[in-house]
Amino acid sequence: MTELYKHNLYIALLHYPVINKSGEVITSAVTNLDLHDIARVSKTYGVPVFYVITPLLDQQELVKKIISHWTIGHGSIYNPKRREALELISVKDSIEEAICDIQSRNQGIIPKIIVSCAKDSGRQNLTYRNFKEMIKDENPYFLLFGTAWGISQDFILKADYILEPIKGTREYNHLSVRSAAGIILDRLMGNY
Amino acid sequence: MTELYKHNLYIALLHYPVINKSGEVITSAVTNLDLHDIARVSKTYGVPVFYVITPLLDQQELVKKIISHWTIGHGSIYNPKRREALELISVKDSIEEAICDIQSRNQGIIPKIIVSCAKDSGRQNLTYRNFKEMIKDENPYFLLFGTAWGISQDFILKADYILEPIKGTREYNHLSVRSAAGIILDRLMGNY
Repeated sequence: MTELYKHNLYIALLHYPVINKSGEVITSAVTNLDLHDIARVSKTYGVPVFYVITPLLDQQELVKKIISHWTIGHGSIYNPKRREALELISVKDSIEEAICDIQSRNQGIIPKIIVSCAKDSGRQNLTYRNFKEMIKDENPYFLLFGTAWGISQDFILKADYILEPIKGTREYNHLSVRSAAGIILDRLMGNY
Repeated sequence: MTELYKHNLYIALLHYPVINKSGEVITSAVTNLDLHDIARVSKTYGVPVFYVITPLLDQQELVKKIISHWTIGHGSIYNPKRREALELISVKDSIEEAICDIQSRNQGIIPKIIVSCAKDSGRQNLTYRNFKEMIKDENPYFLLFGTAWGISQDFILKADYILEPIKGTREYNHLSVRSAAGIILDRLMGNY
């Protein structure tokens, strides 16, 4: 199949800075199925790197252990399709470190930062249509997903763009980050 | 927000009849996060009932225990948004039992059965565009998702329609059923 889009949309799953139910900034724990589901979505839609961001060393070790089980351990033989997906994961300490990595892959160009958010932020949102057009150029873009109750408001307001929240047919907008990542990448790059 | 579609698209997650890695028909175990993620997607897109189908009594009990934790137990107070989603789940022994339930909610009309499938089946597929048009009438439709390695081939061939597989920008099509359910319902009912 023809590769319809250039591979310039990088994504990350943030475990910091995110908020808890009370709105406090926390570091969340890594969820195994987030890694699997979002890595498989990344592979499906041609995302070049899926960054998993946590400043906690023991959590970084956990992620690396899961990845190595599926990429070089028993899992890689049992299910090679998981290997292809999970080898897209790169564990980083911070968003800044991931941005440096994207720059190093793109002749030093700083990626535009787009945050996803379940609620209307009050700032102008980036629509899916505009985002889809935007990523057709050759510049790198970096789309961030938050775990727990979402990315911290301070960080959201510093991003270049805030992506329009997912709306279904109802007011309810409480999707898991796994579902949101799949739906958003399909809206941007789905082929049907 | 206006309800854009009538609530006539029912969905189910099948734990039988599905196949394992070797293609044998099995009954799979229930995965907790499948229930949460797909219930939340169902609530988002106005699905009236999300059937969880397993013939195993202990698995039915497990599903009911998870639901009651979030609908009447501690979880319902901690996170009422989970309650709203999980109360859409109805546990059934078999596909036939779910069909009877849909009939009883629709003046005896038998729903059209649509199966989702990661691979091209060889039979004519239903496109997303056609499916989207189809569900605008008042008849009930029943969309089935398989766990494990997918719905058994025998059952797929008996369905009224086989939904076009999800294709991203690459040949890779190994999404989790959680991701697939979100993407498919968004393609049918997403509002953006």
